[in-house]
Amino acid sequence: MKITALAGGVGGAKLVDGLAKCLSVEDLKVIVNTGDDFVHFGLNISPDLDTICYTLADLSNETTGWGRKGEKWECMDSLKAINAPTWFNIGDRDLATHLERTRRLKNGETLTQITGELCSAWGIKHSILPMSDEAVRTMIKTKEYGWLPFQEYFVKHQFTPVMQDYRFDHIEEAKITNEGKKALEESDWIIICPSNPFVSIEPIYQLCGVKEILKKKKVLAVSPIINGKALKGPAAKMFNELGIKPSSYEVFIRYHDFLDCFVVNNGEARGINDRKHWHIMIKETNIIMEDKMGRIRLAKEILKMIEAEL
Amino acid sequence: MKITALAGGVGGAKLVDGLAKCLSVEDLKVIVNTGDDFVHFGLNISPDLDTICYTLADLSNETTGWGRKGEKWECMDSLKAINAPTWFNIGDRDLATHLERTRRLKNGETLTQITGELCSAWGIKHSILPMSDEAVRTMIKTKEYGWLPFQEYFVKHQFTPVMQDYRFDHIEEAKITNEGKKALEESDWIIICPSNPFVSIEPIYQLCGVKEILKKKKVLAVSPIINGKALKGPAAKMFNELGIKPSSYEVFIRYHDFLDCFVVNNGEARGINDRKHWHIMIKETNIIMEDKMGRIRLAKEILKMIEAEL
Repeated sequence: MKITALAGGVGGAKLVDGLAKCLSVEDLKVIVNTGDDFVHFGLNISPDLDTICYTLADLSNETTGWGRKGEKWECMDSLKAINAPTWFNIGDRDLATHLERTRRLKNGETLTQITGELCSAWGIKHSILPMSDEAVRTMIKTKEYGWLPFQEYFVKHQFTPVMQDYRFDHIEEAKITNEGKKALEESDWIIICPSNPFVSIEPIYQLCGVKEILKKKKVLAVSPIINGKALKGPAAKMFNELGIKPSSYEVFIRYHDFLDCFVVNNGEARGINDRKHWHIMIKETNIIMEDKMGRIRLAKEILKMIEAEL
Repeated sequence: MKITALAGGVGGAKLVDGLAKCLSVEDLKVIVNTGDDFVHFGLNISPDLDTICYTLADLSNETTGWGRKGEKWECMDSLKAINAPTWFNIGDRDLATHLERTRRLKNGETLTQITGELCSAWGIKHSILPMSDEAVRTMIKTKEYGWLPFQEYFVKHQFTPVMQDYRFDHIEEAKITNEGKKALEESDWIIICPSNPFVSIEPIYQLCGVKEILKKKKVLAVSPIINGKALKGPAAKMFNELGIKPSSYEVFIRYHDFLDCFVVNNGEARGINDRKHWHIMIKETNIIMEDKMGRIRLAKEILKMIEAEL
């Protein structure tokens, strides 16, 4: 059974890690959001790709949810000493990833090729695929500062500004990669990880042709919202500021066009009794991945739901 | 008495450090070679500027002669782990300098402005001026690999290839900075530090108009050759490979057009009895700066020679 997972950062990385421990290299491919990517100090930084890769390679800092474990901060401290901007934390080890990605991009390699090389060096066997080799840039319109590049909204301003709107710059020219398209087309099921529906998942399906493939395929999504709150990040805050009450139901509504199965936390299914969408299965389980075993547990439960449908 | 020093890397940095301890901020300015600059991993690296600045700020590694003291190598180790090129050593602290320089250059600031900001953050009071705000690129023609950018010849190949020729790419378009030109024009004496005459000093005086200013001004040079050998680096090897026996005399010949005083190591003056150039003073002293006190000693001796001439 071939699976392609769509993922953003931390929440997505956890489920991808669980799935990768249950599925062979042939059966799991991962398409990762690159709308959060940006250039900082001239370096090409791909936060979601790095979070997924560090997690799979067991290099990630489980406490912070970003960056590498055992990280050192010599460079950051020296940046502070010369009054350089330090709002985006880059550890000394993490820096190596950005340096080499930048070098290879300038050398004409694609982000897909580079990610493959990095994965191979880190011992990651599954295909981790950036959604596009072209730059897509998520922009957040804030009440306080107008349009901000995603990382400035998310990291520099710690997602405190009020979000009024969002857009994905260059999404019309960017193409899903051949590898990503092939993975989607050959999938038996596509799993949408519990990532932010606005800024992690939407950039992927807004790429030309992706929504059409999702509509043709079996798609399962895991809600990133529990009890009106996001486990991590600004998803619930974004719903509120866009005038929508944050809930699994509203995530369901965003995805319902291409959804076949929706997984929510225990006790949340009753909120989704939308008779118009009776053909979409609603499944309840504990969607909190509290530790590494919890990732495998949720992955196994999802795979069981899927198998029952085949 | 206003002095401008022309300097390259390690040897130059030592004399500049000695001069800076003897001369006020008003009386000493330093013009630094940028022909060694290069772009690596997308970062703008200026090795000679960094060597001079780290030395003056007491941040330099006195053992290696390059980089920062107490340096850590987390990033370098992580680069190795992903099979990235590691022939150019960049320590974690040193990286901060390259990151911030790159960020500011992309921001439209000039190398002169940026160097000023870095100096101010590091507590360096004297003006350290890059020779040009435009890129000049020293290229070395080698028997083994053809034309190589300077850092590939110098660091990647550890200056083992045979040098057949050298050139300074973009030297014709590049201009000396206004600040550098003003410093030269207002100088009572210009001091050429004991740096490599081919690749550290020549790029500076090959900039349009500089040689003409040197000819009009009083110029003192310190030989970088003792007993046919360079104290550090490839200067003697370069002389040999260009078919010239390395000696202080040959350095003198290279500079004699604009020279008023030439300082050589004790016992080396007798080799320079060129009657055509009787108007150039030859001075002997111990030109080895064995420690920090040695730098001040040599600086004081040079300043005495100059004062005697005023």
